[in-house]
This record gives sequence, structure tokens and C-alpha cells, in this order.
Amino acid sequence: MSKEITSSSENYSAWYNDIVLKAGLAEHSAVKGCMVIKPYGFAIWEKIRDQLDLMFKETGHVNAYFPLFIPKSFLSKEAEHVEGFAKECAVVTHHRLMKDPNGTGVIVDPSAKLEEELIVRPTSETIIWHTYKDWVKSYRDLPILINQWANVVRWEMRTRMFLRTTEFLWQEGHTAHATSDEAIIETKTMLDVYATFAEEFMAMPVIKGVKSPNERFAGALDTYTIEALMQDGKALQAGTSHFLGQNFAKAFDVKFLNDKNEEEFVWATSWGVSTRLIGGLIMTHSDDKGLVLPPKLAPIHVVIVPIPKTSEEIDNVAYDLIKKLKAKGIAVKYDTDDRNRPGFKFAEYEMKGVPLRIGIGARDLSNGEVEMARRDTFEKKQVKLEGLVEEIIQTLDAIQSNLYEKALNYRNEHITDVANFVEFEDVLKNKGGFIRAFWDGTVETEEKIKELTKATIRCIPLDNVQSEGICVYSGQPANQQVLFAVAY
Amino acid sequence: MSKEITSSSENYSAWYNDIVLKAGLAEHSAVKGCMVIKPYGFAIWEKIRDQLDLMFKETGHVNAYFPLFIPKSFLSKEAEHVEGFAKECAVVTHHRLMKDPNGTGVIVDPSAKLEEELIVRPTSETIIWHTYKDWVKSYRDLPILINQWANVVRWEMRTRMFLRTTEFLWQEGHTAHATSDEAIIETKTMLDVYATFAEEFMAMPVIKGVKSPNERFAGALDTYTIEALMQDGKALQAGTSHFLGQNFAKAFDVKFLNDKNEEEFVWATSWGVSTRLIGGLIMTHSDDKGLVLPPKLAPIHVVIVPIPKTSEEIDNVAYDLIKKLKAKGIAVKYDTDDRNRPGFKFAEYEMKGVPLRIGIGARDLSNGEVEMARRDTFEKKQVKLEGLVEEIIQTLDAIQSNLYEKALNYRNEHITDVANFVEFEDVLKNKGGFIRAFWDGTVETEEKIKELTKATIRCIPLDNVQSEGICVYSGQPANQQVLFAVAY
Repeated sequence: MSKEITSSSENYSAWYNDIVLKAGLAEHSAVKGCMVIKPYGFAIWEKIRDQLDLMFKETGHVNAYFPLFIPKSFLSKEAEHVEGFAKECAVVTHHRLMKDPNGTGVIVDPSAKLEEELIVRPTSETIIWHTYKDWVKSYRDLPILINQWANVVRWEMRTRMFLRTTEFLWQEGHTAHATSDEAIIETKTMLDVYATFAEEFMAMPVIKGVKSPNERFAGALDTYTIEALMQDGKALQAGTSHFLGQNFAKAFDVKFLNDKNEEEFVWATSWGVSTRLIGGLIMTHSDDKGLVLPPKLAPIHVVIVPIPKTSEEIDNVAYDLIKKLKAKGIAVKYDTDDRNRPGFKFAEYEMKGVPLRIGIGARDLSNGEVEMARRDTFEKKQVKLEGLVEEIIQTLDAIQSNLYEKALNYRNEHITDVANFVEFEDVLKNKGGFIRAFWDGTVETEEKIKELTKATIRCIPLDNVQSEGICVYSGQPANQQVLFAVAY
Repeated sequence: MSKEITSSSENYSAWYNDIVLKAGLAEHSAVKGCMVIKPYGFAIWEKIRDQLDLMFKETGHVNAYFPLFIPKSFLSKEAEHVEGFAKECAVVTHHRLMKDPNGTGVIVDPSAKLEEELIVRPTSETIIWHTYKDWVKSYRDLPILINQWANVVRWEMRTRMFLRTTEFLWQEGHTAHATSDEAIIETKTMLDVYATFAEEFMAMPVIKGVKSPNERFAGALDTYTIEALMQDGKALQAGTSHFLGQNFAKAFDVKFLNDKNEEEFVWATSWGVSTRLIGGLIMTHSDDKGLVLPPKLAPIHVVIVPIPKTSEEIDNVAYDLIKKLKAKGIAVKYDTDDRNRPGFKFAEYEMKGVPLRIGIGARDLSNGEVEMARRDTFEKKQVKLEGLVEEIIQTLDAIQSNLYEKALNYRNEHITDVANFVEFEDVLKNKGGFIRAFWDGTVETEEKIKELTKATIRCIPLDNVQSEGICVYSGQPANQQVLFAVAY
């Protein structure tokens, strides 16, 4: 397979797809809109999942598993939720196939029609709150702090691998609380967990904010979000945390006796991130040589390439190094396939975004050195064998920091304040990124701007300074600045 | 909730259900045949999954993820496979709901009918081999050693939590090889992994064997199995590993160029274990006080109970102990809820199968001692605080060994040789367990025995001594002994 990929400046979308395919992350499947996550892509997801799972557990959550299927009637129980989710979804209507009496294949057995259709979960609030009803009697049963790792299905018309697929993998937290305050604290705590994860592990800076009412999760009183900026100037909603109030408790009649022995409805949150994060990872760091991965999420930290091929001397140095690196928790691959030339291997591991490459050749070894090459900066240098392990560890840390700093600078340079709609359109067209502007708070303005420019309100940043101004579109008085962007 | 459960001798099936519910492992959901796996049950599954995942990776496998849906036509491509799996399954026929024009709910949008129905995967051979076709060109692309952790759906008429549910969680390995020999070695390697896991982690002795042709996986040339014996004398198929020959490669046209540049079909295996293992775990060790867990799979190893309630002195000892145990990787719960009496807590953690209980009270502390109680033997003793951590570690090891030995003795005592069908029926009725007998190798005999007794051939043990005898049912000459049992 050719390792040439479309240049990102020429066609960002084609570049993205090339990386997904040629780095071996995923591919389209036989089922429209569903992808196959290949081993290398799945290894990144495992790193994301394991780290988040640890952070969820550290914040007191436990995992559980609820059914894949949701009875159709459940979706209509929460009035807004049904609007948002009871549309494009996979509907199971039958439970049996039979031999085609007129052919060689199988057909749906018409006698096996379900009494009530089942929906493949697009999200699990309904089935979970139906379950919580039996779990909660008194304040002593609260809080419930549960997370689920699962696959969900939303029948998308336009799909892009990782960013928007019909089936995707995600986690969904669903918590139940005795008070509104406690639920709001939970909502914000999980937003913080997501932001910390994005910044410290994905090296992807994010802005924490709250969604405008129009962009809220269907059934939420407030949706908090982390918004990242991709290299093409578009925003990516990377994770959301919802304060659901008592909406689902009321829809599913989940009440408890509080400590004053009064009956109350339970307060709820839900929060999730998905395989979409891998799309964000790609579009935050990668380049025209392929994927670039922050070391903390790289399945392989270091690749060792023998120059020009394996020998007993090189093997000895390599296996000694592997042993020492493994002891430090560093994942190493030693590419001993002598059928491929070093140049081919260099390109291969650059495409796969392996953060560090160590080239071991006889000439360097005679000086007690190897060659170390960074994936992020392409910087190469000779490093003495003595102290090599420490140098590798420090360089991996440096790569992690450098990727974050680079992305942060790019993101900060692409937050532009505008005072009027001429500037708004100009920045959107010629620069991209986030546009910070006053908004009059009406859904009419929000929708008109979207219609004219495709830009949406990404969030009202949590660190917003409340002030007075003039709405960028309507010219009406406005008391808040928001961030607009065209988004994935 | 009352912690009284049905006695296992009175009604084993009711006892089993009581344990699942009252130990907080799982419960029935709103969707027929699907269960909710509750946090405590899921924590056990996480332990099973993490350990197996480690063992799969140590044997060279990587994880990937394939679509939940399988196009209906794929199921008919492998002739035997369609017989086995294209029957009771969840069929997705539509992709949209709409508001009911005549009511308040939602109905299936008739205009959103899929051109080809999609089946929720009952197992993934078909979609995976369709994918492998594009991955394999030459022997250099082989072997492919992939595992998937996933949910699958088989529309079961009679379900029992963990043992047989419509949706269940499992792992399915799907490997592709250049030679038959290599695929057979893989099949057996994974059987060994399963057996090691069952015995060393679940403390559940198993018999490795091969299935009779009648009991093979649909599409396999050989199905290997590990068979365990439950406390009620019934067998449980705990894991299977299939040598699929070239059947799926032929069905999906997956060929490769071998090292002589000749085109060949690829050789395949698949292997899986599921949440059913938790059912096996319950029915291997538990008793009338509730669940009994081997320490290696227990979410909580040690529970500390203050006697009769918390005090500063007890807290100090407890937190010091917790710190020391955590440093050794031992999971501890300190139950500080002073609203419950110690006796209530004892029963609670016995129900949940926590292997060790440490009671800390002022009187014992004045002697520098605490009380340690084993869940498996109910043995209680006073232990000096000095050396307590070591004593706990040794006792956990002793519990793990004791559970295995006890189960092994029970299992070995319940393998009975019989010479004729009168004995066969007598043993089955009055003793249960495995019956070792000669079988003439015909499917007629196998099916007749099943019809008369409900017992099936569980396996032809791998360590069978080949010898000559008389078939236990037909009286015909037979050259192999097999194990019969009534099975879950």
C-alpha cells in the first residue's frame, strides 16, 4: 500500500480519511455507516478507555451493564428526549429468520413479529431510569454513581470514521442524587474529568462551557461541554455532561424518601465521551506524514529499527534496550523484518505516529551511540547508549508537552473577538476557529447565524466575564459573550 | 431486603436465582430475556475480562472491533452456519420512528424500511471473514490473531441470568492461518488458556475435550470444549474453541499466496467465553449463605467490620490496615455504616461472597488482636495485629486453593464409569455428574440417549485412553469412552 497521503492543505477531509486508513486505525465495513476498528485504532481506544475508567473510579463511580435494547414505548416517556432520539434509530421488529421457501437464502419469519418493537439504544437514559425506579426507595440508596461502556446506534445519514458513525463505542455515566446541588456538582466534576483527560492525555486543549438551550441534550436542563479546535479551524464537541434535573425521574416515576421522610423525585446527570475522541486526536496533532500521537495514548512509544538490517550486535543492543524500557512501562517494537529497508520502515512508523524512533546501526554503535528521531519535530540526534533510557523517557515527556503547547498556541491564536457581523463573516471565511462575540440570547439570532454561516454557538465559556455589549448579529443589547464556530 | 435464600438442597434453581439477586449480581430487565448486570456482578466480569485479556495478549492476540450488525445475506453464505445461527435472532428492519399520527407515542416509520435487513450479531464469523478478505493477500499477512470483546444476541426462549440470556457479553477470538496445522495448534492453545483460567482463577476444575460431531459449532470441523461440573450434578460448557478449517474462507473467498506463490484458502479458528462463566462460578462454590468467590476474582477481598461500631481507636487500626493491604494489591472495604449491626453486616458480606472478614472490636484490640473469619469454611480465629497482613495474604491463598480442591474432589467423585444402560440411568437419577461410558460413535445412539435421559455427550476427553468396549446403549462395538451428563 502506498504511504503517500493527500496533503492536509489541499484537502483536509481526504487527508483525514487517508490517515485513518493508512495508519491502520479503521475502515468502512459492509454495513453502511459502521466502521471496523482495526487493532491499532482499537489499541488507542483501549488506552483512552483504561485511563478514563481509572478516573471515573477515582471519582467514586462503578461500572454496570444495561440492555442493548429499549422498548419503543420507553422513548416516548420523556417529552423532549423523544424529539431528540426517537428518530433515526435501528428498530428490531422480528426475532426469527427462516429458509426462503422460494430461494436459497433466508428471509424474515413473518410469524416472529415482536409485540412491541425494540430500539437499539441510541443512549440509555430511558432503560436505566426505568431500572433505577426499583433501586431507589430512600435517601440512603443515593447517590447512584454508575458508568457503562457500551456500543450505541444512531442512524446517521452522513458518516465519517470515528467522527460520526452509525454504531459507535462510548461510555455513558448515569447518576442519581438526592439534591439538585449534588447533581450539578456531579455534572461539573465529570466535565472537569473530561477536560483533564483531554488536556493531560490527549494533549488537546479544550474550552469548558455550557451549551445554549438550543444545543442542549434532549431532556437536559443544562448541557456542559468541552470544545476543542481542529487544525482546519473547525470545532469539535469532545465530551458532554448533562444536568438532567428531575425530568427522567418524573418520566419514570423515580421517587425517594428524603431525610425528613418526604417523598421527592430523584435528581439526575448523564455524561459521555466516545470513539469520536480518536477523530479529535487525529485532527489535533497529525501532519502530512501521517498520524501524530501523544506518548500517553500511543500503543507503541518507541520503535527500534536496525540499520540497515538485523545483526547479532544490533540484536544484543536492541534486546537489552527493550528489557530496560519495558521495566519502565514503555511499549517498544523492534522491527526485525529484513525484507523491508529502513526508509520504508521510517515512513511506516511515521504514518502510525510512533512518538520516538531509535535507529541502531554498526557505525553509530562503534561510537557507543544510536540515532533517536522524534515524530513531532522530526528532530534527529545521536544519543549515547549510556543514559539512553533516561533520554528516551525525558524525550517522551517533552513530546507530550510540545504537542499540547503547539495545539494550545494554535487554539489561542484562533479565538478571535469580533464586534459586528461583517467581521464575523470575514473571520469565519478567512481565518476560521472560534469567534468570540456578544449574543442577545435568542434562539432566532442563533438560528439565523447558523443559516447564514453554518457556525453555531459552541458554548458559553465557564470563565466568561459577564459584561454588557451589542449582539453581533441583531445589534440588540447582550449580556454575554459566546464562542461561535463551524463544527464537526 | 431479606437475606434469607432458598436452600440449595430444596430447590437448586431457586437458590441460584436468589444468589444472583440477593448478592446484587444481576436482575431481570424490562426487555424479555435480557438482564441488567449490576455493579457487583459487573466488577466480577471486569476481573474475568482483564485477566483473560492479559492471557490473550500474552499469547500474541490483539483486540479489534467489528460491527454489531450483520447483513442478512452474510448468514446464508456458510451452509452449516446458517442452520445454527440464522434462526432465533434480532432482526433490524427499519431505521426510523415517527410520531404516531393517531396517538401520543411513536411508531415505526413505514417509509424507513431497510433494503436488506440487518441481524444483531449472534457471533461474528461472517462479518469478520468478509473483512479478512481484504486483509489477506499473501502468507506475509498471516497469521491474523484478533479478539473482540462484545455483546451478542441470540433470541432464547428460556433464559436464566448469566447462564442463558438473549443478550450476553463475551469475547470472540477469530484467527486466520496459512496452514491447517497452525490453526489446530491455535485452537488447542486457546483451549489451554481457557482451562488455565478456569482452574487457576475461577478455582473451577474443567475437563478438556472435543465435542461429538452432533454438538459442534455450526461451521466448525472440530469444537474443543472445557466442561465443568456444577454442585447439582449438571455439567456446564464453560468455553469452546473451534477449528473452522477453510469453511469460512471458502464462503467469503479469502485466499492467499503461499510461500510457493500458490493460491490457497486461509485456515480459521474461533473461540469464546461469556458472562456465562459467572453462572459457573456461582454454581461451583456457593452455599446456602450466599455467594462464595475465589479471591482471585473477588471485587472485595477483605471486609473490615467494626465491633459493635466505629470508634477512633478502631478507625485508626482499620485505616492503617487498609493502607497496608492496598499496597499489596488487596481490595478492602471498611463498613463504617453505624446504622447496621455487626450481625447484619456479617450476613451481608457472606451473601456477597467476600472471602475474608476482619472484625475489629475494643476487647480484642486490648489484646492486640482482631477476629478473622473465612467465608469458605466459616472458620474464625483471633489474629495478632502484628503479622496480620501476611496472615491475610496467606489465608486468601489458602481460600483460593481450598475452593479448587473442594470442587476438584466433588468433580472427581462425580465421574462414574458405567458398563450398561441400566447403570447409566441409575447413576444419572441417583447421583448425577459425569458418566463415562463407551459410545459407538453414531449420532443415532447419541440422540436416543438424549431423548431418554436428557443427557448429552459433553465431550470426548483429550486424555482419553483409546480402548475397545461395548457401547453403553446400543451394545455395538465401540472404540472410545466419552463423558455424558445433563447440562446447562
